[in-house]
Amino acid sequence: MAVRLPRGFRAGATRAGIKPSGKPDLALLVSGLPAQWAYAATQNRAAAPSIHRGRGLYATGAPLRAVVVNAGNANCATGERGFRDDARMAELAAFRLGLAPEEVLTASTGVIGVPLPVERIAAGLPQIELTPYADPFAEAILTTDLVPKVAEAEVAGARVVGIAKGSGMIHPNMATMLAFLVTDAWVPQEALREAWRGIVDRTFNQVTVDGDTSTNDLALVMANGAYGEVPPEALFQALEGVARELAKKIARDGEGASKLLVVRVVGAATEGEARQAARAVAGSLLWKSALYGNDPNWGRILAALGNSGARFDPLRVRIHLQGIPLYAGGVLPFDREAASQAMRAEVVEVWADLGEGEGAAEAYGCDLTEGYVRINALYTT
Amino acid sequence: MAVRLPRGFRAGATRAGIKPSGKPDLALLVSGLPAQWAYAATQNRAAAPSIHRGRGLYATGAPLRAVVVNAGNANCATGERGFRDDARMAELAAFRLGLAPEEVLTASTGVIGVPLPVERIAAGLPQIELTPYADPFAEAILTTDLVPKVAEAEVAGARVVGIAKGSGMIHPNMATMLAFLVTDAWVPQEALREAWRGIVDRTFNQVTVDGDTSTNDLALVMANGAYGEVPPEALFQALEGVARELAKKIARDGEGASKLLVVRVVGAATEGEARQAARAVAGSLLWKSALYGNDPNWGRILAALGNSGARFDPLRVRIHLQGIPLYAGGVLPFDREAASQAMRAEVVEVWADLGEGEGAAEAYGCDLTEGYVRINALYTT
Repeated sequence: MAVRLPRGFRAGATRAGIKPSGKPDLALLVSGLPAQWAYAATQNRAAAPSIHRGRGLYATGAPLRAVVVNAGNANCATGERGFRDDARMAELAAFRLGLAPEEVLTASTGVIGVPLPVERIAAGLPQIELTPYADPFAEAILTTDLVPKVAEAEVAGARVVGIAKGSGMIHPNMATMLAFLVTDAWVPQEALREAWRGIVDRTFNQVTVDGDTSTNDLALVMANGAYGEVPPEALFQALEGVARELAKKIARDGEGASKLLVVRVVGAATEGEARQAARAVAGSLLWKSALYGNDPNWGRILAALGNSGARFDPLRVRIHLQGIPLYAGGVLPFDREAASQAMRAEVVEVWADLGEGEGAAEAYGCDLTEGYVRINALYTT
Repeated sequence: MAVRLPRGFRAGATRAGIKPSGKPDLALLVSGLPAQWAYAATQNRAAAPSIHRGRGLYATGAPLRAVVVNAGNANCATGERGFRDDARMAELAAFRLGLAPEEVLTASTGVIGVPLPVERIAAGLPQIELTPYADPFAEAILTTDLVPKVAEAEVAGARVVGIAKGSGMIHPNMATMLAFLVTDAWVPQEALREAWRGIVDRTFNQVTVDGDTSTNDLALVMANGAYGEVPPEALFQALEGVARELAKKIARDGEGASKLLVVRVVGAATEGEARQAARAVAGSLLWKSALYGNDPNWGRILAALGNSGARFDPLRVRIHLQGIPLYAGGVLPFDREAASQAMRAEVVEVWADLGEGEGAAEAYGCDLTEGYVRINALYTT
């Protein structure tokens, strides 16, 4: 099912031979017009050269024209050579597109500590055919993901398309996650940058798969204005909707995951505490294991809430699982078999009311399976 | 192998029928003399009644005479009834021992959210035979632990004996961990309390199994002075040695673990940052999975260090695994097969120099196995 990019955007990919599997691994996303942009990048101190380079570009405030992404090699912890290789990837992509290197953002994802095969990128870039469709790009940026992740929305005639990859090392600020949202709406860069921070905090930063934070993550939005102006609030809402859909798709496709976990916390003292509390439940290994075993072990939900830093009195907390009340300041009688049965679903929802205030938030995760361990026990050997 | 308690301490256990397995599950630890004591308890907001009660006793500064522990039921999230049941357990134990309830600390570990069967505790307490040996107590406090955990030391003629249980939900501040250290040395309570905080920070709080923080953890030390005075610094060193040995035993016996992980970080800007950094590596699911697979994937170690909050420049970091240099500001050539072979050991050591300052610390963890998932997927059902 081909997803058409917003006006003025084109994308494409090729097999450059970076992934050992021989699958597509080099991709370009290009705007015909200079685009306003905003992004959020990993806070990891061992951030890859592409992240350092991106921060530098971001600081200039200049518009962006293109992104070049390679998958299969994170070009991280590759020493000073890594910085040269990253700059070279930008130069090669800029040359291919007739742009200046400063107009091209780089992104890399894959194994850490292996020198980037720049000569393969040089050979691959001319082969990339640019089309108005998102799909080949979405396919080429995957690593251990099982499915491509694309979402779209319309807003007052303008369009928003988002493309992302997961799916391990997924945890707030940020995940092994690359997300690219593009829109043909016009929006001032300052407003876009300010809105983007909140959108990322409420969506991508609420995804957790394993608590590890990757060295290469970023979430980018580009707005090229090819369609024209739309009400900014409507645009931001559409961007947030697309980001949330991608966040859920990333969590659903977490390494080894068999189901999506959606945690909704209400009644927190603040929205920040609600976000923390929801994330703590989505990230609890004990609860994720219980989720895998269809075990309605709500004690682990309460323990994770208690460990989140959010303020509450356990005697005022309420917990529902798939709509079934399990706890209300104390043990509730419930049909354990029915609750376990209700957990055999593709999406499992935890709802918790902390009984403190008005703060509400969601977080997205998945179950912890034996498959996760197998995938990650044997990644490089 | 029977471990004799320090002078003036006795302990014992019985099968009260709290554990479904029918194994010993109710235990007493008693000092003939009033003991100076110090403890550290979980920071979890959903802390169990036993923790709230212990905090109250601690605040009075009065000496302690005994601990009553039940395993198999955490008496947590059991509503207001849970508080009454906990107080009742203390009263029953005090009656059995001829003490005041305020002289008895309670501890519970096991499943959350199930009312405590106090009548079984009442029936079990009179059956407990008190002896000068640690072993029956060490056996009775276990839950999913595979082996009892006891450690001992001598200091200037006085003795220190420590008894602990793990082994899931193990993460700083605190773990699903109960630890009881007893000594017949004399020490002023104020000095003991101050020293204990640092000892716990450097030992039990550096253990991580799954990042979850339990609702019932505590680490207690009792000093009854039956032997007499010893140099305080020597005593604290002995206590720390025993605590460290127990911490390693807890990590080694983490749920599903096949090996012990010892992470030593040096060259951090501060000791606190070294502790954080070491803990982040010991707690990284990705690295723990690689450890299980004997995969020398040092990129995950670097990524975990980068995620710890400790300051460093990746170009100055060095990483060794089992003494083999893998990374020094960039990729080092190493024999992957030999490194993988070296990981097939009961204890695997990671050493990292952050190149920033003089801060050093250790953390203790274990590998993440398919067994962990199996154990925790089916705990209550």
